[in-house]
Amino acid sequence: MSDRTTGWQANRSGGTTGAEVLVETAAASGVEVCFANPGTTEMPLVSALDSVPGVRAVLGLFEGVCTGAADGYARIAGKPAMTLLHLGPGFANGIANLHNARRAHSPILNVIGDHASWHLPYDAALTSDIVSLARPVSGWVGTAGSAADLARLTAEAVAAANTPPGCGATLIAPADFQQEVLPAPIDVELPPLPRRRQVDSGVIESIAKRLRDGERAVVLLGGPALGERGQLAAARIAAATGATLYSETYPAAAERGGGLPDLDRLPYFPETAIAALADAEIVILAGALEPVAYFGYEGIPSLLAPEDSVAVLSTPEEDGARALQALADALGAPAPTATLSTSAATDTELPGGPLTPQAVGRIVSALLPERAIVSVEGGTCGYPFFTASANAARHTTLTNTGGAIGQGLPAAVGAAIAAPDRKVIALQSDGSAQYTIQALWTMAREQLPVVTLIASNRTYNVLRTELARHGQTEPGPNAAALTSLADPAFDWQGLARGYGVPAARVETGEALRRELARALAEGGPQLIEMAL
Amino acid sequence: MSDRTTGWQANRSGGTTGAEVLVETAAASGVEVCFANPGTTEMPLVSALDSVPGVRAVLGLFEGVCTGAADGYARIAGKPAMTLLHLGPGFANGIANLHNARRAHSPILNVIGDHASWHLPYDAALTSDIVSLARPVSGWVGTAGSAADLARLTAEAVAAANTPPGCGATLIAPADFQQEVLPAPIDVELPPLPRRRQVDSGVIESIAKRLRDGERAVVLLGGPALGERGQLAAARIAAATGATLYSETYPAAAERGGGLPDLDRLPYFPETAIAALADAEIVILAGALEPVAYFGYEGIPSLLAPEDSVAVLSTPEEDGARALQALADALGAPAPTATLSTSAATDTELPGGPLTPQAVGRIVSALLPERAIVSVEGGTCGYPFFTASANAARHTTLTNTGGAIGQGLPAAVGAAIAAPDRKVIALQSDGSAQYTIQALWTMAREQLPVVTLIASNRTYNVLRTELARHGQTEPGPNAAALTSLADPAFDWQGLARGYGVPAARVETGEALRRELARALAEGGPQLIEMAL
Repeated sequence: MSDRTTGWQANRSGGTTGAEVLVETAAASGVEVCFANPGTTEMPLVSALDSVPGVRAVLGLFEGVCTGAADGYARIAGKPAMTLLHLGPGFANGIANLHNARRAHSPILNVIGDHASWHLPYDAALTSDIVSLARPVSGWVGTAGSAADLARLTAEAVAAANTPPGCGATLIAPADFQQEVLPAPIDVELPPLPRRRQVDSGVIESIAKRLRDGERAVVLLGGPALGERGQLAAARIAAATGATLYSETYPAAAERGGGLPDLDRLPYFPETAIAALADAEIVILAGALEPVAYFGYEGIPSLLAPEDSVAVLSTPEEDGARALQALADALGAPAPTATLSTSAATDTELPGGPLTPQAVGRIVSALLPERAIVSVEGGTCGYPFFTASANAARHTTLTNTGGAIGQGLPAAVGAAIAAPDRKVIALQSDGSAQYTIQALWTMAREQLPVVTLIASNRTYNVLRTELARHGQTEPGPNAAALTSLADPAFDWQGLARGYGVPAARVETGEALRRELARALAEGGPQLIEMAL
Repeated sequence: MSDRTTGWQANRSGGTTGAEVLVETAAASGVEVCFANPGTTEMPLVSALDSVPGVRAVLGLFEGVCTGAADGYARIAGKPAMTLLHLGPGFANGIANLHNARRAHSPILNVIGDHASWHLPYDAALTSDIVSLARPVSGWVGTAGSAADLARLTAEAVAAANTPPGCGATLIAPADFQQEVLPAPIDVELPPLPRRRQVDSGVIESIAKRLRDGERAVVLLGGPALGERGQLAAARIAAATGATLYSETYPAAAERGGGLPDLDRLPYFPETAIAALADAEIVILAGALEPVAYFGYEGIPSLLAPEDSVAVLSTPEEDGARALQALADALGAPAPTATLSTSAATDTELPGGPLTPQAVGRIVSALLPERAIVSVEGGTCGYPFFTASANAARHTTLTNTGGAIGQGLPAAVGAAIAAPDRKVIALQSDGSAQYTIQALWTMAREQLPVVTLIASNRTYNVLRTELARHGQTEPGPNAAALTSLADPAFDWQGLARGYGVPAARVETGEALRRELARALAEGGPQLIEMAL
């Protein structure tokens, strides 16, 4: 028997249901939180969340809140939360944010109740092909064939979720097996926590040689390389070789500020990204995938790096931070001399007057508390904030990794639950916030210290830009209607208060500074509409 | 060339894009409305909605609003609307309501933009397996392989959607083919509109014989049999044979009131449904499927009708109304003598004082305008309303056919757009309303005459019932939290006004009568929170 086994057989004298075995195995595997929107076929699991200790249940009013929260939780906690979703349609509502989680390599344990196994053949109203829905967003899918199965499969699912680079693992648990009382204890051996693979020294040496030979280099950091260690090592490489550093465009979690190097994100539009990489003779990927255009545009290549320039230092499943350190060492790059501060450089001339996205970026950066988490969704203020935040206090930025909209508020929920001692800011566009607006209620219920900042410009601005790229600079009535949110404009204060979140509205830099400082000081959830 | 072809080649001198061909083919096939939440890969289609006449674009803030609206539209208009959704994740957000639409046999044309075909291999962030997501809710799935394909496949998709019993047809349109300008016109022959199959006279005669032989009968009406003709024919059969009539438990659209027979719905819980059918020697299915338990409960059979009792008069794809008429004729059942009124019986003693679900049912029934459409979701007031509405003015009730929550408000949007001259009431539970609450904004933008009534009891009451069925009459803290909406309670007036919908709150029968009468008279969207 390994050190890590489920302990329930020692704790129980009576029978144990399949649902209890599932929850106990999850808890023994390190799962502490369950983001849930259950239905009838999950009732034994709901009961088990009380009869088995160790897993905190958090209710979402909509499944996309649960899956996005599990993603945000994983990015901060570095381990899986559980989601509990109702059959195929409930799971379907969570797919968009599981798509983002997949691109973020976030470990998640999805548990879906299904009809009792003997009831499935009758094709009752809620029956559907759950596996077909689950596969596109799951690195592992399993369906329990018995109550005893629930122990083995839960352990397997969590292990799959935790295997680098991390993935969503989806376990389908028929209601009868959840409910069944097991006649004898089940001893599940939990596999050891898998570690990231180390990069082969030959790979490091061959890249070091090209750098020593003077090739013009860009280092693109992503995934596990974007922590403090990886960034500091990358800065050593840059200092020694003149290499340019970029973060991948949509990092799952990037440490930033407090003296860390100013890693800009590789630009979004392909022309600009291609220009940024054009001079490179070697594009070194450290935890990042080869950069490709976000969308395909006629006449613009999909691959953004110059031909034959790409060298993989570390894949997303490997230990990119250590690989960067090894590369810096191989280059004989000296350690940095400056000591890292964790606080912000003073931005003495904060902009006042009518708000612009640039002003928002600077003000939010200046007011960020130390170790804040910033969940960024939407282009309007997202890019200006990232640009301005290099000199902010040390913080972690979460971005929308998969492009499925509705990620920012739920991720903020999950991040706040993963790190109760850190302040969370959700910097959010108005259009995107609407997809999972129900997250505000969970913030209120759990009294999470999340300040939501809504960039309120009352348009799908990114689509106006895309229409213009298609030559539609003056959209017709349907195109105008499909890209405008002005008629009627949302009353953000009404919506926030409707969910129990105190709210304010600001139109100037001065007001934003005042309200943001107040909101951060008060604790608990707050929302500020920023009229742009 | 058939009578029904696309006409665009006559109307255009210049080139036409694939997107324009798609929209024109859809319009020529009878599509008049597009419920859209587009993104970058749908921009040529957005432009085409302006350059090609005939399709009205309606924006939803969330894709589940679009698909639920298309379902509601189809149930009232009897023909497909189009949805326009963004890639896999956007489509995924629409799956839950497409699941309901599948169970309602609603014809829908789903159009999903995908990455440019040449960009797909690079697995950009938003790439996913759309077909795997689409199959479980689509009777037809097609992916265009060229711009010219978009004409043929659109015609094929609409034909598939319209083929009885009706289904969702999902067309994946890569962005490059949408954008491509076609060198020459494409002549698409549109297939004739398929009709419902007539039931074989042998089937009718064999059932008539069993009824003449005196077998105790239940007739279960569903789908196409639930219109006026089918119900009147069923009433003749009941009068001639003593048969009991039921509607299927969750009809897609049931005509009711105004002198139609009082067809109760087959009960929801299996014990009660089994008891309702227990005495039947023959259970005649007219457009309904064989009744099965909604969920499987230990020790209760899945099949609800007595063994060997089921006789299929008509399947959902057949003309059930005509089959019922033929059966009534075969039985020599006399035509009804009473003339149908379309207005309500007077309910002179409407309940006052604190609101109960029963009081809500009676008050709403009494105040229903003629030809109103009632979109019902949630058990709290849904069942009491149905019971009370037999004597209401003639109206159409839409129910949640597939059990995927979040259907009621979007279906009300679609119904209102399908029938602009009819009042719509969305009778909605508070928990269910939260899944697609963004529908309120579309009601405000389109100024739809929808009165939303929220049954506000601040719990997932159905789950409390299910917990009790599992022996959990005193739920533990997690189970209590996962089934309560009280902390914090929603401010429904704040939420509604936040989306531009005027709102009121009532606590008594008197107040509900006053506010409902006012809301119906004012036109445009209104919301009334009914505190229970």
